[in-house]
Amino acid sequence: MPHSPLDAAQLTADLIKCPSVTPEEGGALQLLEKVLDGAGFACTRVDRGGVSNLFARWGDKAAARSFGFNGHTDVVPVGDEAAWSVPPFGAVENGGVLYGRGATDMKSGVAAFVAAAVDFVAETPPEGALILAITGDEEGDAVDGTTALLDWMDANGERMSACLVGEPTCPERMGEMIKIGRRGSLVARITITGVQGHSAYPHRACNPLPAMARLMDRMASHTLDEGTEHFDPSTLAVVTIDTGNPATNVIPAECRATVNIRFNDAHDSASLTQWMQAEIDRVAEEFGVSGAMQVKVSGESFLTPPGPLSDLVAGAVKAETGVSPVLSTTGGTSDARFVKDHCPVVEFGLVGQTMHQVDERVEVAQIHQLKAIYARILRDYFA
Amino acid sequence: MPHSPLDAAQLTADLIKCPSVTPEEGGALQLLEKVLDGAGFACTRVDRGGVSNLFARWGDKAAARSFGFNGHTDVVPVGDEAAWSVPPFGAVENGGVLYGRGATDMKSGVAAFVAAAVDFVAETPPEGALILAITGDEEGDAVDGTTALLDWMDANGERMSACLVGEPTCPERMGEMIKIGRRGSLVARITITGVQGHSAYPHRACNPLPAMARLMDRMASHTLDEGTEHFDPSTLAVVTIDTGNPATNVIPAECRATVNIRFNDAHDSASLTQWMQAEIDRVAEEFGVSGAMQVKVSGESFLTPPGPLSDLVAGAVKAETGVSPVLSTTGGTSDARFVKDHCPVVEFGLVGQTMHQVDERVEVAQIHQLKAIYARILRDYFA
Repeated sequence: MPHSPLDAAQLTADLIKCPSVTPEEGGALQLLEKVLDGAGFACTRVDRGGVSNLFARWGDKAAARSFGFNGHTDVVPVGDEAAWSVPPFGAVENGGVLYGRGATDMKSGVAAFVAAAVDFVAETPPEGALILAITGDEEGDAVDGTTALLDWMDANGERMSACLVGEPTCPERMGEMIKIGRRGSLVARITITGVQGHSAYPHRACNPLPAMARLMDRMASHTLDEGTEHFDPSTLAVVTIDTGNPATNVIPAECRATVNIRFNDAHDSASLTQWMQAEIDRVAEEFGVSGAMQVKVSGESFLTPPGPLSDLVAGAVKAETGVSPVLSTTGGTSDARFVKDHCPVVEFGLVGQTMHQVDERVEVAQIHQLKAIYARILRDYFA
Repeated sequence: MPHSPLDAAQLTADLIKCPSVTPEEGGALQLLEKVLDGAGFACTRVDRGGVSNLFARWGDKAAARSFGFNGHTDVVPVGDEAAWSVPPFGAVENGGVLYGRGATDMKSGVAAFVAAAVDFVAETPPEGALILAITGDEEGDAVDGTTALLDWMDANGERMSACLVGEPTCPERMGEMIKIGRRGSLVARITITGVQGHSAYPHRACNPLPAMARLMDRMASHTLDEGTEHFDPSTLAVVTIDTGNPATNVIPAECRATVNIRFNDAHDSASLTQWMQAEIDRVAEEFGVSGAMQVKVSGESFLTPPGPLSDLVAGAVKAETGVSPVLSTTGGTSDARFVKDHCPVVEFGLVGQTMHQVDERVEVAQIHQLKAIYARILRDYFA
């Protein structure tokens, strides 16, 4: 019996009907496991910390080359359901547009690479392996999601030679952007402590506020860099300064501020922490205050330099859409920040304009186009 | 029948027993009215806004010279009554020390000038008038206290040629300090407004925090002056900076700060407001933010320059105590800030170390000494 192609749009609709709001599995991974199992993929549920993930491999674990796809089936909450014009988990299609939570972010992406992979191994079984690493914890803390899959793969000798994350990457037009890296992100919480006193006698107190003001002025006006070959300039945003002193005749003892740095490959969290600590030490000496800092790193910057993998993906995009994609490192974080420690990784997916919004939706034609691009990537990779 | 001197310590004790926590009259003004009425003073209760005040004049309203005393009978709350070693309104005397709320601030001062005035007019009736302007609203908002008395005096053609405010003025030793003026005080509440946005894309937002940080750094590090002939340097204290933004990925739209300036006679609230507005305009232009400011003036600075009145008081202090008092403009506000618009005013009273504290107390000997100083001032003034 010849293989009948898997309909990526229908699979997207079926996935939308699974109410898989993080951390609920919602039936989405069960559905995929059934499809992949039937297509000859070896499936393993990798569950950790109350979250479900699915690892699926076609081909030999010891294959010399294995191409991987990464994506997630969990979705953000629907928000104000009354504001939706359709049921958020109804998968209503109207005029070539499919509506529902996860329609773009990223059940369509998962459906497209699952459908491409299933068709590919059925029609032209490759020399090598295909790995699908699908998580149910990308929109949440992402502690037990792709990280759990990668930990499990390491422990079990599973290996991807290259990986494509199927997140939406195109700002407006299908095919226009491939992401080859991301800026890093950290949050620093800084406390400056002085000595409380009466506003009428500032010389008897030690006011932490002027020290904090100078520190924040210096940090905010410092040029971290002018951008690097593949990255925009790093940015620093002072997001809050707080004291909470209601008494105008009292000089407070303490002031707190929070700074968010998005940094490129000219820095890492250690070098930035060292720089901030030096600035804190400087005002501490100038003003006679003391300073403390807690730094939380969301992710270091990373880059898969332009090369075979981005060429492969860009070529497939151009062939299927006629558009030459730009290689970008913009945007927020994604699970590519975990995959990059495992193998070269790039991200490519459809247009993500309605991500996380009410009436999230996707053009059905884009799902088919995305499946075609993913299929061509597989053909070219194993050619 | 010869006049028997009024015991100022006994009168202090009687006043302490009146629980006159602002705005309660507590019987204190009634008691004084009775004493003064009996001594030939024309008494008028000047009540306004739920507060009681007492105006008392001996002598002719049209007298060429009239000497005034100003003071208050209201007291601050007792605070933690369990922490007191005596009943706060018990007027317990122990080892020459009289205990109770208001013992130093300032029922002893009021008792001393009332006793001095009553004895003086009985024993050596002067050519001129004596005015006692006693308020029940100094520790509160002070809106309907001495101001109400002065308004009423203006409306009724009552006039003081000079006035002594009997607040405690001596830091440690009886007689060491006369106050001839006070710094002014204002509070400025400043809001800097920008445009909210995502921390990852600061160029699409307009963050008000760096502008506020620079503004506060500039204001706090600006030297307002080096002091003037009779005043310490003006001071500026940044007392709070607040944003209240809990989201590290959001650049907030607004930040607020409060500044307290204590200023000498090199400035007034208008010149300082102008300076602050110019600094706000400067950062508004530098950062593309907008700024708003609300200024509340507690009082302008004022000075009764050293001259006949301070010489008179200093001479009496020196004669009674052997101490040469310094002429000072230090300390917080007092009702002298209102009286100064009416006539030359200085402040002199006893040692105020336990003002507003638990177990507030006064040495009985100091009350007698203070009465003697006030009596000598009256004799010398009318000599």
